[in-house]
Amino acid sequence: MTKKDGGKKERKAPEPALRDVLRIPAGEPVDLTAYDARATPAGPTDKAAGLAATADLGPRLAGLQERLYAASTAGDRRRLLLVLQGMDTSGKGGTVKHVIGPLNPSGCRIRAFKAPTREERNHPFLWRIMRALPQPGEIGIFDRSHYEDVLIARVRELVPRRRIGPRYGQINRFEKSLAEDGVTVVKVFLHLSYEEQRARLLQRLDNPDKHWKFDPGDIEERALWPEYRRAYEIALERCTTAEAPWYLVPADRKWYRNWAISKLLLEHLEALDPTYPPGDFDVAECRARLLAS
Amino acid sequence: MTKKDGGKKERKAPEPALRDVLRIPAGEPVDLTAYDARATPAGPTDKAAGLAATADLGPRLAGLQERLYAASTAGDRRRLLLVLQGMDTSGKGGTVKHVIGPLNPSGCRIRAFKAPTREERNHPFLWRIMRALPQPGEIGIFDRSHYEDVLIARVRELVPRRRIGPRYGQINRFEKSLAEDGVTVVKVFLHLSYEEQRARLLQRLDNPDKHWKFDPGDIEERALWPEYRRAYEIALERCTTAEAPWYLVPADRKWYRNWAISKLLLEHLEALDPTYPPGDFDVAECRARLLAS
Repeated sequence: MTKKDGGKKERKAPEPALRDVLRIPAGEPVDLTAYDARATPAGPTDKAAGLAATADLGPRLAGLQERLYAASTAGDRRRLLLVLQGMDTSGKGGTVKHVIGPLNPSGCRIRAFKAPTREERNHPFLWRIMRALPQPGEIGIFDRSHYEDVLIARVRELVPRRRIGPRYGQINRFEKSLAEDGVTVVKVFLHLSYEEQRARLLQRLDNPDKHWKFDPGDIEERALWPEYRRAYEIALERCTTAEAPWYLVPADRKWYRNWAISKLLLEHLEALDPTYPPGDFDVAECRARLLAS
Repeated sequence: MTKKDGGKKERKAPEPALRDVLRIPAGEPVDLTAYDARATPAGPTDKAAGLAATADLGPRLAGLQERLYAASTAGDRRRLLLVLQGMDTSGKGGTVKHVIGPLNPSGCRIRAFKAPTREERNHPFLWRIMRALPQPGEIGIFDRSHYEDVLIARVRELVPRRRIGPRYGQINRFEKSLAEDGVTVVKVFLHLSYEEQRARLLQRLDNPDKHWKFDPGDIEERALWPEYRRAYEIALERCTTAEAPWYLVPADRKWYRNWAISKLLLEHLEALDPTYPPGDFDVAECRARLLAS
């Protein structure tokens, strides 16, 4: 902020919250081609600074996570659910490793959703999602989610189109109910470029130790890039709500992706501001009994 | 090894595997008072060396974990189950945080067993255990386990004594079946001293941020220390089998406990020696298709 009145010291404007920077605006059409997947819209702008900033966030996240868990032991129902979506190789798995890694694994409930099983297909699509939700005090992480049911299901026509339409509303109502029950839903779209996906798939091919991660089917999915992009645009457009907005994280640079998601988590946990619950016992009396034991 | 024939250089005997040092001998009575909970029976003998050695093990564990997971994508059913048992404050939760922390959280299936729910009590005691088992490629961690059903259940007489007796055999047959199905079962008893438990409970009392971890009921359980010790001795004695031996880890020093369990995990994963599976696709052809996309 540059002040015109000369005499006063320039004051630096406070940095906007990252969630205000990355949140997809509600009620507007989404055009993913308008977003640069290599951008660094806030925070560190080079790799060294990004890695250092992310490392700094680790202990702060772990501290807040412990408070959240501690609060749950005294009846606080609040919990957080991180939903990760993005094209193949956009870094959903890498996010779990690098962003969730510094947290206490006991308090994380991680679920990677694959193609639904026969039993899952026989239930409403949200059935398997409900069963994987975090409990009070936990941080849940979904690597893919119920959004697959309006993404691959739409592009690959796994269910009739007339059954896709109602799902957006079902998702919004479901997420609203979660919010009402104390779940902070943080939905992250990992925005990857078509070129970067090619580079990442080639890297997997070029390293025999990565062949297990490669599936020739990925090349066929890639051919449907425009259809997937459109399906994402529709989902982001229809399912960015006040209760559960979508955040778009540029994902071509892994260090930026890790920093941004760590920071988003931190901001949401800080907003919850969980506190250690006081004991409901007589400390002096317990102390005396222990010393006598 | 000191050779008597003078001329030759002294050769250092290879260090014995930690699992051979800590394994509870099968077919012998177990007397826990004979084990020193502050001992460092192998490996580092001071805290600085212990912390450094444990930090070194982290990346090696993470590397083997990735291979184990990768192998499962090609049909390898093998997986590992770490069972943690020990008195209150013996460090089961701390082990998950510090030993499992360096692993990729996606590949860990962690379950803390509390008092069984009504539904769980209506099933055989192994029912809830079965449902929490790791899948191929995963590392499962049990913070408490089916052993509670012969420990607190025995001491507190939660079920009639005549129903406790058969459980040891049931456990052994269950663990044998797991081993036959490709599960490496690593059972760790965290051996804590009566004095160290008092010190740790006092620490919780003296720090308001730790009050949520304190339960006055812990003092009543502590009064039953000899009964719990005896229940552990019986469980360790009857359930140390060739397929699933018990390891006794001295737990009064947290740094030693973390090192020892990390090392035990490493030895078991190295013995599995999982390998990255080769791709079953034509690399050159995939490469060409990708470059053209």
